[in-house]
Amino acid sequence: MEYSVITSKENKLIKSVKKLLTSAKERKQTGTFVLEGLRLSADAALNGYTIDTLIICDSIDESDRLKALIKSAQVIVKVPESLFSYISDTVSPQGVMCVVKMPEKKTVDDIVNGRYIVLENTQDPANLGTIARTAEAFGISGLVVLNKSCDPFSPKAQRAGMGALLRLPVISADDISKTLQAFKGKGFKLFASVVGDADCDVTKTDFSGNCAVLIGNEANGLTDIAIKHCDRRITITMQGRAESLNAAAAASVIMWEMTRSEVE
Amino acid sequence: MEYSVITSKENKLIKSVKKLLTSAKERKQTGTFVLEGLRLSADAALNGYTIDTLIICDSIDESDRLKALIKSAQVIVKVPESLFSYISDTVSPQGVMCVVKMPEKKTVDDIVNGRYIVLENTQDPANLGTIARTAEAFGISGLVVLNKSCDPFSPKAQRAGMGALLRLPVISADDISKTLQAFKGKGFKLFASVVGDADCDVTKTDFSGNCAVLIGNEANGLTDIAIKHCDRRITITMQGRAESLNAAAAASVIMWEMTRSEVE
Repeated sequence: MEYSVITSKENKLIKSVKKLLTSAKERKQTGTFVLEGLRLSADAALNGYTIDTLIICDSIDESDRLKALIKSAQVIVKVPESLFSYISDTVSPQGVMCVVKMPEKKTVDDIVNGRYIVLENTQDPANLGTIARTAEAFGISGLVVLNKSCDPFSPKAQRAGMGALLRLPVISADDISKTLQAFKGKGFKLFASVVGDADCDVTKTDFSGNCAVLIGNEANGLTDIAIKHCDRRITITMQGRAESLNAAAAASVIMWEMTRSEVE
Repeated sequence: MEYSVITSKENKLIKSVKKLLTSAKERKQTGTFVLEGLRLSADAALNGYTIDTLIICDSIDESDRLKALIKSAQVIVKVPESLFSYISDTVSPQGVMCVVKMPEKKTVDDIVNGRYIVLENTQDPANLGTIARTAEAFGISGLVVLNKSCDPFSPKAQRAGMGALLRLPVISADDISKTLQAFKGKGFKLFASVVGDADCDVTKTDFSGNCAVLIGNEANGLTDIAIKHCDRRITITMQGRAESLNAAAAASVIMWEMTRSEVE
């Protein structure tokens, strides 16, 4: 397999990777994003993503998994360890990174049936990734990420998602009212998850049929507009002294309740 | 209130705070740890912790909450913004930090009744903190943190715990066999949470009476020794394609199931 060698921080690709790692705008404009690590990169290749460029640290062993990944990449670049550390977003770089084409944009119109999670203003990419990972594990149909949420294509979100963000349908939407009305037009029940002031406990909520549960911002919860569009306000009854749960922990319990009855 | 002013990075207190933020050994040796932010610091004071030193950035407003905190501190130090940023562990420093005395050490012998979570080799302090936060919210009696787990007194764990690690009984234990035998001696049922190879689904597990659930390392799960001590191996049945859940997400669902029946 042919590959080129890059050794300078001033190289165009290196500069572009640096930008892609930190800037959601850059990712949007180029229609590409960066995945770090063999596992995530291989997940992308296995799930039909186009690997534009594969960057490998010149000191790593070429395992069978890496060899397969090399075959699926369009361009392969080797860099010395120091340069890989420079571009790496992790504390202990594994020596594998790739620039990937974003999948075709899906919209709410693509939704037909199922159970969805709608994230409004989720700020922490680790929460977004963890929610996607749990969603996939529990058989949730997809995620809708509303405008002011963090970018699902950021390296932190992808890392926390452990590949779930590459496999699960993820729909980015700008207009909250339009999005929620589209759900309602398709006969979906909408549930707002709130802390206090709920009209239904999550254990008593009927999640059968098509439904979507809205999860709000880590500090401020859902906006009034979002809550107004919903059929019910559901909550996790807490017994202890904590005022609230971590957003990903709360989402995990809610998704568990959404699908729990099917396990029993 | 009297306070001293520190402006140099070479100052003894500044050097010691830097060490306390990064070194579990330093925390253990001095019997102190650092909390950052007004909320966590006030939580500590409210819960009877001794605030050895309160460090305030000289540019912040003295709110009523901060004034109350100042009253409960033994020594107060003001530092310029640049020095506060230098010692701060966060991206956007709030200007309040304190050195706190560790609580008296609890052991498994202090446990009488209740439902406990035992963490074996939990690596990520954010997971440990999030688990504590959820545990408190769901009325779990306490956490046992086994030897190779990360330090519950680290700034990341405390931040993710949102005060729960200051309120919830947290027992650090070195010897896994001794610890689990002590639980059994007190009539506790022990449950090992595993991925696959379980003998009981978490929805069918009887968590009534005294019990403890063991949660393992993020990548490798529980050790064989830990599992051998347990009465049952419980699991969260997954319907999707993900191979596993994030440790804190899994722990959230398990703790929810441990206490869920009391909500209904």
